[in-house]
Amino acid sequence: MKHGGDLTQAMAEFGGAPDQWLDLSTGINPWPWPIPANLPSHLWERLPTRADEQSLLSAARSAYHVPDNVDVVAAAGTQALIQWLPHLAAPGAVAVVGPTYNEHVAAWRAGGHEVGVIGSLSALPDHAKHVVIVNPNNPDGRIAKRDELADVAAILQRRGGWLVIDEAFADVDPAISVAGLCATLPVAILRSFGKFYGLAGVRLGFALAAPLIAQRIATAIGPWACSGPAQVIGAAALRDERWATQTRVALVAQGIKLDNVLADAGFEIVGGTPLYRLARHADALKWHAALARQQIWCRHFDWSHELLRFGLPPDAAALSRLAAALAK
Amino acid sequence: MKHGGDLTQAMAEFGGAPDQWLDLSTGINPWPWPIPANLPSHLWERLPTRADEQSLLSAARSAYHVPDNVDVVAAAGTQALIQWLPHLAAPGAVAVVGPTYNEHVAAWRAGGHEVGVIGSLSALPDHAKHVVIVNPNNPDGRIAKRDELADVAAILQRRGGWLVIDEAFADVDPAISVAGLCATLPVAILRSFGKFYGLAGVRLGFALAAPLIAQRIATAIGPWACSGPAQVIGAAALRDERWATQTRVALVAQGIKLDNVLADAGFEIVGGTPLYRLARHADALKWHAALARQQIWCRHFDWSHELLRFGLPPDAAALSRLAAALAK
Repeated sequence: MKHGGDLTQAMAEFGGAPDQWLDLSTGINPWPWPIPANLPSHLWERLPTRADEQSLLSAARSAYHVPDNVDVVAAAGTQALIQWLPHLAAPGAVAVVGPTYNEHVAAWRAGGHEVGVIGSLSALPDHAKHVVIVNPNNPDGRIAKRDELADVAAILQRRGGWLVIDEAFADVDPAISVAGLCATLPVAILRSFGKFYGLAGVRLGFALAAPLIAQRIATAIGPWACSGPAQVIGAAALRDERWATQTRVALVAQGIKLDNVLADAGFEIVGGTPLYRLARHADALKWHAALARQQIWCRHFDWSHELLRFGLPPDAAALSRLAAALAK
Repeated sequence: MKHGGDLTQAMAEFGGAPDQWLDLSTGINPWPWPIPANLPSHLWERLPTRADEQSLLSAARSAYHVPDNVDVVAAAGTQALIQWLPHLAAPGAVAVVGPTYNEHVAAWRAGGHEVGVIGSLSALPDHAKHVVIVNPNNPDGRIAKRDELADVAAILQRRGGWLVIDEAFADVDPAISVAGLCATLPVAILRSFGKFYGLAGVRLGFALAAPLIAQRIATAIGPWACSGPAQVIGAAALRDERWATQTRVALVAQGIKLDNVLADAGFEIVGGTPLYRLARHADALKWHAALARQQIWCRHFDWSHELLRFGLPPDAAALSRLAAALAK
């Protein structure tokens, strides 16, 4: 399975209607930021305006603690940025810290770069011009230290390359973000809106980078990249500090409950973030199929037959349903 | 002014709140397809699914009369496709038929191509590998004949190039579209959803092309390009043939009323489509400013001081307001 979050495959293989499924295959917050009921119709009708874009960028700057000398670019999801970066970076080999989210390797290869996967930043090959790291990593949740990232970025700067840091799951703890590094180093940071705010269907994401890199990204993305509703929903959600603070606590608490359910079923929790947990079991693939037959969809991986990733069940009933399914 | 449809500049220069302005600066249908009041919340929350994407592509295939052997790719607006095409086409010189929508020249230049503007397809230079034409053209409404387009595409095929046809305003008359050419020729057609359906804020557009070209575009665009709401709104609107048929008639009728108002004020109608009219006046720039002081925003052009483009006033009151402003 290439990605989580799409029940099309699950239903084709195991049947069931969408509302019968408990989808734990993503790292998307199950408690979305509440979108106002009546969005003004002009958001759909008119072209997105520069004023709304500026408001969105300003909200992102504040939410992501972006220093003044670092620029922010908005796109219709970080995936759109992942697609572009390999075409904007200098030619040269790329080291991706993995295993990780598989679209990075795919995009840099499609962009004509030689791509190798390394186990950690300390294994940086001499010939690598660019490095891509997901931080915290998906699926294991590993967090790279700021000093380590700064050291690698300084090495890549001498090589004329970029350090791309995908902070898709960094909202769970603002201390993880290294946005400050962009000011003086060739670092491009990706921030996903949809995961922490539980609004993946909105398609909104950001790049944070020094002005020269950010300008190159903005020129590639072009005008009107984000929908009118995405601009306004994004700006309002990113300004809602109270919601973010409460959500961080709630996610951690739900993650602990999920860990307990998995541990009771004989899984070993080996990593994750508050938005998903990575669990090991000798019979992981059997469990994936057994859960799917009970219309519970979690994530397995091509590169391990012992690991499953579970997103957060949205409520006590879903936790119980998972526990019951694992008890069979 | 680089683009229409953004009152940010108009308000900065001439004051007034958004709802005081009559915005005639775009070619966007002022009577949008009616979006259902209560979109299911999961469209915002979950990742867009392959099932919804297939439904959208199938609706586009039907609405745009796409032959079976031609593929359809969806993107978050045709602008996103305009940004990508120069990076996917073979290196080589590009001839853009102009004057026209200015983002084509900008995108191909940014993509590293040598770009020249030609007055018509018959002026195709020997060294041009690719051609871009907007059909019907924006702003003059000129329509290229199918045979002429086929001949140019055949020439470009021998040169290893592409013919890009931006059919952004072709919905007003389905006979304009040359989607059939894509089957055997290196033709990439762009179809904008937002203009005819009056929903520019949704960000939705399509590329129609032979499988090899379409696959290259789809790989570049990547997964989840369109928002969940865009997928579902787009599919429903594109399947609404009755609305499309009625809208075509209504746009033509309103265009005639607009022509009469402009002619009464001494403008000569020199072109356009049912979604906008191109009008000539020796004092066009003075009129642009005079209308702006009365909070009416139309479009002027860098390359002519005698032409203004007017989008359709949405109702009789707006027509009267324009007539009164032009009578001062």
